[in-house]
Amino acid sequence: MMYIKDPMEIERKSFEIIESEWKQNPKSYEEAQIMKRIIHTTGDFEYGDLLRMGEDGIEKGLAALKPGFKIYSDTKMIQSGINKANLKVLQGKMYNATHDEDVAIQAKKEGRTRSMVGIEKAVKNEDIQIFVIGNAPTALFHLLDLLEERKQSPALIIGVPVGFVGAEESKEALMNSPHPYLAVKGRKGGSPVAAAMVNALMKIKVQEAAHGGE
Amino acid sequence: MMYIKDPMEIERKSFEIIESEWKQNPKSYEEAQIMKRIIHTTGDFEYGDLLRMGEDGIEKGLAALKPGFKIYSDTKMIQSGINKANLKVLQGKMYNATHDEDVAIQAKKEGRTRSMVGIEKAVKNEDIQIFVIGNAPTALFHLLDLLEERKQSPALIIGVPVGFVGAEESKEALMNSPHPYLAVKGRKGGSPVAAAMVNALMKIKVQEAAHGGE
Repeated sequence: MMYIKDPMEIERKSFEIIESEWKQNPKSYEEAQIMKRIIHTTGDFEYGDLLRMGEDGIEKGLAALKPGFKIYSDTKMIQSGINKANLKVLQGKMYNATHDEDVAIQAKKEGRTRSMVGIEKAVKNEDIQIFVIGNAPTALFHLLDLLEERKQSPALIIGVPVGFVGAEESKEALMNSPHPYLAVKGRKGGSPVAAAMVNALMKIKVQEAAHGGE
Repeated sequence: MMYIKDPMEIERKSFEIIESEWKQNPKSYEEAQIMKRIIHTTGDFEYGDLLRMGEDGIEKGLAALKPGFKIYSDTKMIQSGINKANLKVLQGKMYNATHDEDVAIQAKKEGRTRSMVGIEKAVKNEDIQIFVIGNAPTALFHLLDLLEERKQSPALIIGVPVGFVGAEESKEALMNSPHPYLAVKGRKGGSPVAAAMVNALMKIKVQEAAHGGE
């Protein structure tokens, strides 16, 4: 069968199609990059309308991508979806505790989700600049509670839990919080959306560095 | 903040909400399970209308989940999303070659996607019952070509590549092929959708076994 086989050409053409069809008017180059990458990942233009970014979400997120930065994700699926080449260039690390054995045991004992216990472990023991919650509303709710208790604020929270129980409410709570954020309104979201947002930020940062902007 | 923390309760309530809101009329218990799990994973009811299953896709797929079965996925993200407990109960294995070093080297040399070269390696060297393509149209196109060349047919192909260049066309090619399939029409799809389909099939199989249905 005949089809385009070159990955660079596939990506270039995809972004061209998105730009030719979308009806959104992003307010900045950065917002456009994030929006396009989510639409590219999901095949779903509705994300253009659902994307929300706090006043300083993009700015704070980009500033945090300094050598040695650490990103916490609530799923391994997000880690799988991260652009490893750009992560390496920027000298950052991904971290996830949801599947740690001690976390699984504690979660079962307490009747809570592993996502909740995992994020608790990360907040208490690690220096995390960006939290990325792509799956579990419980992780996002609990993160907001923990940060309030501890009077902490990370550089950025990316909150895009998906689903029918608590997802929408957890994102509303994030948007009403004092923290810099990127989010998606409503029920939609998920790990690929979360990974797309991180990848878009990293790509902007790598391009800035290449053009001597940093 | 107040929210539901028990994972079993979250899942039960999610499926209850989906059933109370959906407008689709699945033709069988199995189709309903697959449809609900995709909607649960994506927060997107449109998947109910986009789901396509060949005449014998579900039947052949379920029959293939015998001890020792092997599933090939084109992304690690799919592997991350698979229900490990049920995979273990059913004594199956996931396999992916997209990120193998030899695959990366060959892909770069030949200007093809790693997904294409990876699936070629799998078809030639492994005994795979179910192929799951959640990301790369090139992998699905190439799989169909390879199977035709080799006059082979797997038990099931799950084809849900996402995106703007070739995704829709690759799924049309699958639906017009002689192979048993599960697919999603149009541009939407992706690794979580693919994982949801595999998870739904595995859950049905585990339930059948528990009720002595085998």
